[in-house]
Amino acid sequence: MLGLGIGFFNHLLLTPAVPALCRHPCTDCPLCAPLCRAPTMVNETQHSCSASSSSRSDGGSSSGSESSKDNSRCSTPVLDADRHERLREKMRRRQDAGDKWFSLEFFPPRTANAAVNLISRFDHMGAGGPLFIDVTWHPAGDPGSDKETSSMIIAYTAVNYCGLETILHMTCCNQSKDDITGHLQKAKRLGLKNIMALRGDPAGEEWEEEVDGFNYAVDLVKHIRNEFDDYFDICVAGYPKGHPEAESYEADLRHLKEKVYAGADFIITQLFFRPETFLKFMKDCQAIGITCPIIPGIFPIQGYHSLRQLVKLSKLEVPQEIKDVIEPIKDNDAAIRNYGVELAVSMCRELLDSGMVHGLHFYTLNREVATTEVLKRLGIWNEDPRRPLPWAVSAHPKRRVEDVRPIFWASRPKSYIYRTQEWDDFPNGRWGNSSSPAFGELKDYYLFYLKSKSPREELLKMWGEELTSEESVFEVFTCYITGEPNRNGYKVTCMPWNDDPLATETNLLKDQLEKVNRRGILTINSQPNINGKPSTDPIVGWGPSGGYVFQKAYLEFFTSSEIVRALLKVLRKYELRVNYHIVNVKGENITNAPDLQPNAVTWGIFPGREIIQPTVVDPVSFLSWKDEAFALWIEQWAKLYEEESPSRMIIQYIHDNYYLVNLVDNDFPLENCLWQVVEDTFELLNSPPQQ
Amino acid sequence: MLGLGIGFFNHLLLTPAVPALCRHPCTDCPLCAPLCRAPTMVNETQHSCSASSSSRSDGGSSSGSESSKDNSRCSTPVLDADRHERLREKMRRRQDAGDKWFSLEFFPPRTANAAVNLISRFDHMGAGGPLFIDVTWHPAGDPGSDKETSSMIIAYTAVNYCGLETILHMTCCNQSKDDITGHLQKAKRLGLKNIMALRGDPAGEEWEEEVDGFNYAVDLVKHIRNEFDDYFDICVAGYPKGHPEAESYEADLRHLKEKVYAGADFIITQLFFRPETFLKFMKDCQAIGITCPIIPGIFPIQGYHSLRQLVKLSKLEVPQEIKDVIEPIKDNDAAIRNYGVELAVSMCRELLDSGMVHGLHFYTLNREVATTEVLKRLGIWNEDPRRPLPWAVSAHPKRRVEDVRPIFWASRPKSYIYRTQEWDDFPNGRWGNSSSPAFGELKDYYLFYLKSKSPREELLKMWGEELTSEESVFEVFTCYITGEPNRNGYKVTCMPWNDDPLATETNLLKDQLEKVNRRGILTINSQPNINGKPSTDPIVGWGPSGGYVFQKAYLEFFTSSEIVRALLKVLRKYELRVNYHIVNVKGENITNAPDLQPNAVTWGIFPGREIIQPTVVDPVSFLSWKDEAFALWIEQWAKLYEEESPSRMIIQYIHDNYYLVNLVDNDFPLENCLWQVVEDTFELLNSPPQQ
Repeated sequence: MLGLGIGFFNHLLLTPAVPALCRHPCTDCPLCAPLCRAPTMVNETQHSCSASSSSRSDGGSSSGSESSKDNSRCSTPVLDADRHERLREKMRRRQDAGDKWFSLEFFPPRTANAAVNLISRFDHMGAGGPLFIDVTWHPAGDPGSDKETSSMIIAYTAVNYCGLETILHMTCCNQSKDDITGHLQKAKRLGLKNIMALRGDPAGEEWEEEVDGFNYAVDLVKHIRNEFDDYFDICVAGYPKGHPEAESYEADLRHLKEKVYAGADFIITQLFFRPETFLKFMKDCQAIGITCPIIPGIFPIQGYHSLRQLVKLSKLEVPQEIKDVIEPIKDNDAAIRNYGVELAVSMCRELLDSGMVHGLHFYTLNREVATTEVLKRLGIWNEDPRRPLPWAVSAHPKRRVEDVRPIFWASRPKSYIYRTQEWDDFPNGRWGNSSSPAFGELKDYYLFYLKSKSPREELLKMWGEELTSEESVFEVFTCYITGEPNRNGYKVTCMPWNDDPLATETNLLKDQLEKVNRRGILTINSQPNINGKPSTDPIVGWGPSGGYVFQKAYLEFFTSSEIVRALLKVLRKYELRVNYHIVNVKGENITNAPDLQPNAVTWGIFPGREIIQPTVVDPVSFLSWKDEAFALWIEQWAKLYEEESPSRMIIQYIHDNYYLVNLVDNDFPLENCLWQVVEDTFELLNSPPQQ
Repeated sequence: MLGLGIGFFNHLLLTPAVPALCRHPCTDCPLCAPLCRAPTMVNETQHSCSASSSSRSDGGSSSGSESSKDNSRCSTPVLDADRHERLREKMRRRQDAGDKWFSLEFFPPRTANAAVNLISRFDHMGAGGPLFIDVTWHPAGDPGSDKETSSMIIAYTAVNYCGLETILHMTCCNQSKDDITGHLQKAKRLGLKNIMALRGDPAGEEWEEEVDGFNYAVDLVKHIRNEFDDYFDICVAGYPKGHPEAESYEADLRHLKEKVYAGADFIITQLFFRPETFLKFMKDCQAIGITCPIIPGIFPIQGYHSLRQLVKLSKLEVPQEIKDVIEPIKDNDAAIRNYGVELAVSMCRELLDSGMVHGLHFYTLNREVATTEVLKRLGIWNEDPRRPLPWAVSAHPKRRVEDVRPIFWASRPKSYIYRTQEWDDFPNGRWGNSSSPAFGELKDYYLFYLKSKSPREELLKMWGEELTSEESVFEVFTCYITGEPNRNGYKVTCMPWNDDPLATETNLLKDQLEKVNRRGILTINSQPNINGKPSTDPIVGWGPSGGYVFQKAYLEFFTSSEIVRALLKVLRKYELRVNYHIVNVKGENITNAPDLQPNAVTWGIFPGREIIQPTVVDPVSFLSWKDEAFALWIEQWAKLYEEESPSRMIIQYIHDNYYLVNLVDNDFPLENCLWQVVEDTFELLNSPPQQ
């Protein structure tokens, strides 16, 4: 029997029935291919034979007896490859997977108010899933400065606060090497990783080449590669009709090739009006050896004047068939926009159908409607974006391993990012593990990315022109929860602690929240308990598919000392089930957190991964949060009113005397007991005093 | 309305109805006391007003506006205070909580085989929950050497491999300062934290004090405190009847007081025969100002000769009433032991009932039965020890934050500790987070703490005097699983990969395991899926109470290349649900682990804590484990047989040709699909070949 066995099983590795075993199966590798199917998880590289896509790839890859020595480990699970790959890798991965994508171009705003609106637009349009956005560079507008409207700061905000992969444009003509290097160093310091290298328009009429200066975009590309090696991904511009100043179309193609060979990673084209213009251009590029991705620039016509201006700037000719449609309706904005959308959709379809185009770049002119509509009609606007984590991640490179945050800032993620911007490393896997420095103080509540989007007059309508009692404050909270208009007929769509209407998830708790707010439990944060819903759940899901998400019920509110007094008595019955932390503005606080440890309140279990616990209730950072939470009463609400006015005094009184309370129900598989805790508290308050 | 509110709520902190709010409630603090109840979690300090018991206590404790700057964090959740406190703190905590405890004294064995048995005794008796064990020191036996039978190495093994808090005895007379310092340095290096400081017996008959030498235990205590500051906890000996060489009982008490004032933390007494002897001694100690814990040394009489010898050594007088009972039965060992147990139980009861005694120290003479019986009858033997983690933790100080391990070594924890002994830091919270060095190679499979407890003859009876085919190997595996005798009538109680009978948890899978082993899926490790059982579950529970534990189903086995080939085809249907990793002895391997990330397969959710995930399937360390797993075929099994013998060749063939496979079912809330995977594999093998 033995002999037979040996003979039969011998040389398994050479038999054709089973492919030779490589380290892991991958679609690229011919040996593995029969064993695997294409990755289906969202936002992740499933298998890979190349070492480039995974920091773990070098570990454990050796075969034979040496392998026991080879256990280098990665520093973090790659929950979301988008957070770890560079832009060119993401582009390649989407292309390999056959996914279509889009990107969005914006220009820096002129005023601080416009900047607030643009940031809010980034958030809206970011939800649709652009592969990246880019921010243009206007030498006249001090683009590299620290002003909140500069190209540099807008791009930084997009990356750091909105979590968007971002390309910063940069022009080079008429600038010194030192200036350019300074801009690039600053961009790097701010976490920007992608540059669109442009020549820019010469300042004078009679432009002449400077010896050793930046005369063409290719000089900037070379400079970036010389000074910053491979740090930046570099994009360059392509002109489907040839650059207007080029000697010829062919000469312009050769210039483009030079830019690519100098180190550019991909090309975005100038706008064009006919799909065949782009397709011809692309074939011509390929014919002369340009193999990098070429992304067509799409300009949905949004109005007669903007079209005229753009055409003038870009020195392009509008085709007669388009002029023929537009001229007769030039005063009808809606009609022109409808036509523009129609035209863009049909052009994009043709491009995508050609099989040569994987991504589309949109010149948005900082507007939302037309581009969004085109994308929706094309079916590449992501209607249900999967969240890699329950909170909005930052795209700053130093934060890419960050996967744990205290729940307190759930509705103020930008404030959290701001207050932790000086940290050198970020919690990964465990909150308590991190030895990050303290939270920065939030001194300026009017930082443009923290500012309320609503002007003072609107806030007064929502929160009351005149408050008459604490109860009128209860009413504001209640209206925010219910979505019903207040006594003056205005809907309360934001609160000092929540700049947006109630989250879908919080809506699950709406009835209960309404009840307690009416009675003076002024809730500012909450989540229901979840006992293992699929990670693809549209409301509470996050992370890769195939997983399960969990939550402990959480409730955070301001309330009076009288209620706190009763609550504390009630909570005695609920130890160990309920963890609480109660603090007033002076910092006097009481908690039953064991050894002041963090309590994980959101976590997910995924196939083939370590556990992720993105949200904790951390008793230590709660004391930093309370400063901000109390200050918002004054900074955002009380200061709407005249000093010494009764309205202001009411808010001031609440600020001075109320407590901020957080409660966690640890028994996540059971029905949330926090409502019962509150019910018991009111019952105790209403019961006759005992002996 | 406003005025009323303000007046009513003012100065909450001074009203008697609610106590002033301190940082957190604690039973000690008079302000908080009315708010809390005593901690009920197992093995943890729930609340504490003192900073000493928690590394987090310093963070967030400030009140007022400064608090936002104050967020120092702890490096690890204190899942199990026993792992973090020093012995004297544990003793204090048990005393404060009113818990009774015990400790066990052992002497170093003479031979390597006896050492193996003693280590196994540590494991058994450790399960009963001693607060510590101690290991005696015999200057004649080279106690500080590296021999596996030395006091030093036995104590180190108890700490490092058995996870026991351990006191190493050390005597000082006739030794140089350098020698003593060397021993202490070595003890520290090996992770020992507690020293029992003794004088020891002078070598010559005519002993004289040496100037500047170690003449008394107090000299050693002073030396330790001088040279090692507060690093060690120090225990000293007390003599309830006075030291036999002391001038008087009173003089001896003064010597004891000197030892305590020189820095000893607690006292263990010499054995005694009457409870009143100890109680008087204790009162006398207290009367002269000795306030540290005094632990009575209990000697259950186990035999006539051992009693005679001990009495001779300790120069004690056996009371007449005991002699009267023993002399007539001196040749009846069982009768003497029964009497000894009876006597010890009644004495211990009296001591505990006095209210002055919280812990009992047992002179075991390295025997198990009598002491265990006394402890069980006293009700302080822990029948159902709570596991802080699913695997046996090490008590080595550098491993105290360790809370993640690969599942592969589940049945060989000592081997895991051995192979990671050179690591400087250990995974805490996340496996991938750790940048620990590679696994050490396991060259010597006969290290005494890794050696099989069964001699060769027994192993041959269990695993077959003569193997005739691979199927006869399948039978051995099957008999180990079922607990049925093999064809020669012997039970298979261990395997090369499992030195103990099947774990209770694995028993849950017994029927399925039997089926697959019969057919050549030779399982060496497995766990069922668990979807949120209470952490107090007697079989799968671990960690503090009030929590929930979870597991993904796991199966690890050796099997033939033919089965692997079919298995790989079947597994295609189960992606993403099943993660697999398959490797042969040459290291050729295939896995679908995304980016070679670890997969958490055991985790727990607890009140007020971060998530703990103590066990992972790590594809990188699997390649280190496979070297060990394959080597065990040869080292422990094949080498039982003559070279060139058919039995040996069969094992060698399996070693050379089989694959080691691990499977994880990621869908832990559903029924374990791994049995279906195996079923499908056999079905495929039995189906006629397709076109």
